[in-house]
Amino acid sequence: MMDIKSYMTALGERAKQAGREMCRADAGIKNMALLKIAESLEKNRNKLVEENQKDLLAGQTNGLESALLDRLALKPSTIDSMIDGLKQIAALADPVGAISHLNYRPSGIQVGQMRVPLGVIGIIYESRPNVTVDAAALCLKSGNVCILRGGSEAIHSNQAIAKCISEGLSAAGLPPDAVQVIQTTDRAAVGELITMNQFVDVIVPRGGKGLIERISKESSIAVIKHLDGICHVYIDDHADSNKAVNIAFNAKTHRYGVCNAMETLLIAESRAAEILPPLAGQYVDKGVELRGCEKTRAIINGCGHASEEDWATEYLAPILSIKIVANIDAAIEHINTYSSSHTESIVTEDYTLARRFLREVDSSSVMVNASTRFADGFEYGLGAEIGISTDKLHARGPVGLEGLTTLKYIVLGDGQVR
Amino acid sequence: MMDIKSYMTALGERAKQAGREMCRADAGIKNMALLKIAESLEKNRNKLVEENQKDLLAGQTNGLESALLDRLALKPSTIDSMIDGLKQIAALADPVGAISHLNYRPSGIQVGQMRVPLGVIGIIYESRPNVTVDAAALCLKSGNVCILRGGSEAIHSNQAIAKCISEGLSAAGLPPDAVQVIQTTDRAAVGELITMNQFVDVIVPRGGKGLIERISKESSIAVIKHLDGICHVYIDDHADSNKAVNIAFNAKTHRYGVCNAMETLLIAESRAAEILPPLAGQYVDKGVELRGCEKTRAIINGCGHASEEDWATEYLAPILSIKIVANIDAAIEHINTYSSSHTESIVTEDYTLARRFLREVDSSSVMVNASTRFADGFEYGLGAEIGISTDKLHARGPVGLEGLTTLKYIVLGDGQVR
Repeated sequence: MMDIKSYMTALGERAKQAGREMCRADAGIKNMALLKIAESLEKNRNKLVEENQKDLLAGQTNGLESALLDRLALKPSTIDSMIDGLKQIAALADPVGAISHLNYRPSGIQVGQMRVPLGVIGIIYESRPNVTVDAAALCLKSGNVCILRGGSEAIHSNQAIAKCISEGLSAAGLPPDAVQVIQTTDRAAVGELITMNQFVDVIVPRGGKGLIERISKESSIAVIKHLDGICHVYIDDHADSNKAVNIAFNAKTHRYGVCNAMETLLIAESRAAEILPPLAGQYVDKGVELRGCEKTRAIINGCGHASEEDWATEYLAPILSIKIVANIDAAIEHINTYSSSHTESIVTEDYTLARRFLREVDSSSVMVNASTRFADGFEYGLGAEIGISTDKLHARGPVGLEGLTTLKYIVLGDGQVR
Repeated sequence: MMDIKSYMTALGERAKQAGREMCRADAGIKNMALLKIAESLEKNRNKLVEENQKDLLAGQTNGLESALLDRLALKPSTIDSMIDGLKQIAALADPVGAISHLNYRPSGIQVGQMRVPLGVIGIIYESRPNVTVDAAALCLKSGNVCILRGGSEAIHSNQAIAKCISEGLSAAGLPPDAVQVIQTTDRAAVGELITMNQFVDVIVPRGGKGLIERISKESSIAVIKHLDGICHVYIDDHADSNKAVNIAFNAKTHRYGVCNAMETLLIAESRAAEILPPLAGQYVDKGVELRGCEKTRAIINGCGHASEEDWATEYLAPILSIKIVANIDAAIEHINTYSSSHTESIVTEDYTLARRFLREVDSSSVMVNASTRFADGFEYGLGAEIGISTDKLHARGPVGLEGLTTLKYIVLGDGQVR
C-alpha cells in the first residue's frame, strides 16, 4: 500500500528543486522543450490511443455518461490540437524576466519590477487528457513547475502523456520534475496537494462548480479560480436596434454551456416594445426558453415567469431571463446585485452612459457594444488561457501566461545605505 | 447585550452600498475628503487627546507594557504626522480608472484593462490609533471602502478619530460609511469580519506575527499579509570592500526591530579573512551579538555559535548570524532555503553574478549593492505604504495605493458578435 503523504511530499520536494532551475531557464530552452514534447506526442500517437482505449473501456464498464466519455477520448483531432497548442505557446513571447518601471530614486538607487514565475502550481482537473498538455505547456512557458492531477478516469491516458512531456523536457535539458503528473488515483493525494504550503504556491482547479468550490474551501494555498458566469447584456435607451438584437442573440445562442454566455437580458423600458418581440421570435425559433419579469411577459407572448431565483441562476442551457428596467441606474443595480462579476455588456450609442457603465460595473470584463462571448483569452490576445478568474485579487478575467507570473522588486545601487 | 452578528452584517451591507458610490468618486472629491479629514483632526486636537487619555489610563491600570503605551499615545507630534500623512496621500496620483494596453484585436473590438478599487477592505491592527487614519486615507484614495478594527486598548481614541473621518467624508459629499470603525471591543467581531465573504473583498492584518498568522488561518477571505523578514546580505568574491562593510553594517544596525533589517550575513570564503574582522569590530562596538558558522568563528574572536535554528530566525534584535559560503551558488541555495522571501542584497562588482542574483533569488525585493533597509514603500516611491507583502499573488513587496486596486478588462466594440 502506498503512503500518500510521503509520496506527495517527495513529489513536492522534487517540484521545489526543479523550480530553481526553471526560473532561470531562457525562453529558447523552454520553447525547445515545448517543441520536443510536441514531437514526442507525434511519435507516440499509437501508444497514446492505446492507453486511452484502456480508460475508455473502463469508463464504459463503469457506465460513464457519453458526454464524459467524449471528453475523455483522445481522437486523432484531439492529439492534433494538443500538438498545435504546444507550437502556439512556443511562439508566444516569454513574460519572465521583463523589467518595468526601472527608475532612479532621490537616494540614488534604481527601483523597478521584474516579472517572475509564481513557482510551483498545482492543477486539479477533470478527465480531459488534453488539459494535461495545455496546463503543462502554459506552466512551462511561464517558468513555473506544475503538479498535475487529472480525473481518475483518465489515468492511463495521462500517464502516457506524462511520459511524452518528460521526454521533451529531458531532450531540451530541463528537469523532468518540472511537470509531474500524480500517479495515483487515490483522492487523498488531492487533499495533500492543496495543503502542501511549503511546496506549492498556487492551486488552479479546473472543472465543474462543485469541484472548484470544494477545492477552494479546503485549500490552505491561494487558489486562482473561476466560479459562476451569470453574464448580462443591457440594451440601453440609446441602443442601435440592429446591434442590440445581434449582440443579445449571439451572447445567448452562440454556445449555451459556456461561462461567458448571457444568462439575463436587461432592456430599457423605452425600447422594450420595439426590440423584444422580434428578438423573442429569434430566440423561440432557436429553441430558447424565455422567462421574464411581469412587464416583459406583457410584451412577449408565451414568455414564462422569472422568479427571484432566475436572476441568480447560471443556466448553461437554452434558457434566458429577461427584465425590463427603468434606466442605466436600475440596470447597474441589478447587475451589481445578481451578477457573478464575470462579464457584462451595454448596448448604447450614448457616450456618457457607455463611460459610466465601464466605470461602475464591477465585473472582470465590462463591454460596450460587443457580445459577452468575447470574454476569452484568445479573443483578448493573451495567446492562451488557463481559465477565467472571477477573483478580484491577482488575476481577474482570462488568465494567460502573465497570470501565472508575479512581480518582484529589484533595486540597483552602488553602495547606498540609509 | 449586542448581537455581534447582526451588527457586523449591517456594517457589511452599508460598506457594500458605500462601495458603489466610492468606485465612481473622482480624484478631486476624494482629495477634498482627505483634506477635510485633516481639518477635522486639527480642529479636534483637544478632544482627541482627551479621549486618548482615557485609553492611556485604562492601559496603565491594566498594566500595559510601556512600549505598548507609547504606541497608544496620541502625542501632538503623532497628530501632526496623521495630518501630514493625509495631505501627502491627497497629493498622490489617483490610480483608479487608468486604462492600459487598449488595443484593437483582429475581430475589431478594442481590449484593454482598467484599474479599479478592490471593493471593501477589512483592516485589523493593534492599538496604534495613527493606523486608523493612515489605513482610512489609503483606502479612500484608492476608491475602496474600509472596515477598521483597531486594538481594543485604543477604543476611545479610535472612536474620536472615526468621528473626524466621518465629518471629513460628509463635508466632501462622500458616504460616511466609506470608512467604518468597529464600535465594539468584542473579539467575535473580528471572527465575523474575516468570514463575511459576501461583503468583504480582502483582509489586511497589521501587527505582530501571532496576530497575522491567526487571521490568515481563520479568514475565509483573501488576505494581504506580511509574515517574517529574514533578510540576507551576501558579500561576493568580487565585492568592493567599503561598500560591503557599509551595507552590511547599515542593514543590521540602522534599526533592529524592522522587517527589512538583515538577520544573516553571507560572505564568500575568499573575502572572509579580509572583511569579517573589521566589520565584526564595528558590530561589537555597536553592541551586536554575533553568531557564526565554524569557519566564521575561526576568523572572529569571541563569535558565538550559530545553530540550524539561527539561520531560520528573525531576531528583530541586535543579533546577527554569519555564514561563510563557497560561492554565489551556495549563497543562493542558503537564501532560497532559509529566507522568508522578503529582501536580499548582493554586494558585488561582477556584472554576470549581479544579473544571476537578481534573476534567481526568489524574494519580494532583490538588490545589488544597496542596504536591505531600502525595502520600503516610501524609498521605492510608492508615496505611502499599507504594509509589505511576503505573499506571491497579487501584491508582492511594499504595498501602496496600486496594491489596493485590481484590473478589470474593458472591451469597446461597435456591434461585434462571435
